[in-house]
Amino acid sequence: MRTGRVILVGAGPGDPDLLTLRGARALGCANLVLYDALLDPSLLALCPEAQRFFVGKRAGRPAIAQSTIHAIMVRAATRGLTVVRLKAGDPFVLGRGGEEALVCEAAGIPCEIIPGISSAMAGAAALGIPVGHRGVAPGGPVFSAVPEAHYQAVLASLTPGAITVVMMMALGGRASIAAFLDRAGWPEDLPAAVVVGATTPGQWSWTGTLAGLGGAVVPEDRRELPGLVVLGPVVSLAETLLRAMPERDVVGAGLQPYRSQENMQ
Amino acid sequence: MRTGRVILVGAGPGDPDLLTLRGARALGCANLVLYDALLDPSLLALCPEAQRFFVGKRAGRPAIAQSTIHAIMVRAATRGLTVVRLKAGDPFVLGRGGEEALVCEAAGIPCEIIPGISSAMAGAAALGIPVGHRGVAPGGPVFSAVPEAHYQAVLASLTPGAITVVMMMALGGRASIAAFLDRAGWPEDLPAAVVVGATTPGQWSWTGTLAGLGGAVVPEDRRELPGLVVLGPVVSLAETLLRAMPERDVVGAGLQPYRSQENMQ
Repeated sequence: MRTGRVILVGAGPGDPDLLTLRGARALGCANLVLYDALLDPSLLALCPEAQRFFVGKRAGRPAIAQSTIHAIMVRAATRGLTVVRLKAGDPFVLGRGGEEALVCEAAGIPCEIIPGISSAMAGAAALGIPVGHRGVAPGGPVFSAVPEAHYQAVLASLTPGAITVVMMMALGGRASIAAFLDRAGWPEDLPAAVVVGATTPGQWSWTGTLAGLGGAVVPEDRRELPGLVVLGPVVSLAETLLRAMPERDVVGAGLQPYRSQENMQ
Repeated sequence: MRTGRVILVGAGPGDPDLLTLRGARALGCANLVLYDALLDPSLLALCPEAQRFFVGKRAGRPAIAQSTIHAIMVRAATRGLTVVRLKAGDPFVLGRGGEEALVCEAAGIPCEIIPGISSAMAGAAALGIPVGHRGVAPGGPVFSAVPEAHYQAVLASLTPGAITVVMMMALGGRASIAAFLDRAGWPEDLPAAVVVGATTPGQWSWTGTLAGLGGAVVPEDRRELPGLVVLGPVVSLAETLLRAMPERDVVGAGLQPYRSQENMQ
C-alpha cells in the first residue's frame, strides 16, 4: 500500500479569500482535513469530498491533545490518505507546524508545508497600518512578531519607537504590556493600536497612544477573537490610509472549489 | 465618469501558486497591471485582458522612478480603470505599499490592500525552518524581519539566540552581518542559514553556523535573486524537516485564471 502524505496548510489571518491558490488546491485533493478553531467555515467548501474533523480548541471544552492530532494524522497517512492539516495563520509562525512536521518525519511520511499569511502583517494592514514604511520608523522598516507571553524579553531591549512592534495573541495582556512599557520608559504618546478578528466580518479596532492602551475596551462579544497589539509611529498612518480603503470589497468575494489539472503526484 | 480604483496585491515569496485567492481575483478584474521585478511571469496569465506594464528594477538599467509609478497609477484610476499594483512579497512589509496608498488617498482614489506571504516566513519554511517552534527558541516563538541596512540597531540589543532572526534583503551583507555579530559576542556555533530565490525553481540554500556565514558562497548565477539570512536555534531543525519535505510538489502545480462570480463593485 502506498504511503499517504500530510500537507500543513496555513489558512491566513481570517478572510478565507486570503488562502493561497496552493492551499486551495491542497484542500481540493485531501481525503481527510483536520481543522483548527478560528477558521471560516466556507473554507470547508473547498474540500467537499474529504472527511473533516474539527481538532481546535473551544472555550469551555476540553481541547483535543496535540498528541491525539499527531496520532490521527500519522494513522491516516500511513493508510495512504492525503491529510490536510488546516491551521489559522501560518503553520510555522505560531502554529505548532514544526512539531507536526517532525512527527511526520519520524513516521516516514512526506510532509509539505504551504505557508499562510500571518496576521502579524495582515492584521495591521487591515487597519491601514504598513508595518514597514520608509522614513516613519527611524530604524527603518522593521518589525517583530511577539507573542504576548514572551514580549518582555524582546521589548525590554528595544529602543522605544525605533521599530514597529506587532504582538500576536496579545489581547488579554494589553494592560500589562502597557504598564510594563510605561515602567520601561516608553513614551506615553507612542501610537498604539488594537485589532481583533482582523480581516473577518467581526473585525474591531482601536487606535490611540500607549497611554490609552491599557484602558482600551474591547466589546464583550469580540473578546474570544484573536487580537493583535501594534506599537510604533506607523500606527499614525492608519487614520489617513483608512480613508482610501473602501469599506466594501472592491474585488468581490466568494470562494469556489479550486481544482488543479494535475492533483496527484 | 466613475473613478477607478487601485488594488495593491502582494504576490508572495516567489512561487506564483502562493498568491492568494483574492489576489488572483483582483488580477482577473484588472484593466491595468503595474508589476515589479522578481515575479513569476505565469502570474500574468491571471490577467489576460489587462494592459501590463513592467515597472520594476533591472540590474544595469535605469529604474522607473517611484513618482512615475504614482503618476501612472493615479492617472489610470482617475480615468476609471481598475489598476492592480502587483508586488513581490507583501505590499506593507518592505514593498513601499504605504507610500502608494497615501498617494491614492491624496488623489481621492479608493485603494484596497491585498496582503501577500512575506518571504520572512515562507523563505525559512522552504528550508524546513519553523521561525517559531515551542521549546527551541528560549525566548519563545518570536522573530524579527530585519532588512539588512537596519540590522545593527536591532541585533545589537537582542540576547543572542533568544529569538529567531530573519533578515530580508541580506544576501550581500552576510559577511558584514557575521562580523558585526562576532564583535557583539554572539556564539560562533549559533545555527545560521542563507536562502536565495526561496520557493522558486532557482532556490539555493546553505546551512551552517554563524562562524561560517561570512564565507558562505552563493553560486554566481543566483546572486541577483533575493536572499534571506536566518539565525537561531530553529535553523538546526532544517536537516530533519527537509527529510520529510517532498522534493516534488505533492499538490501539483499550474495556475488557472480565477474569476469571481461578482467582480465588480
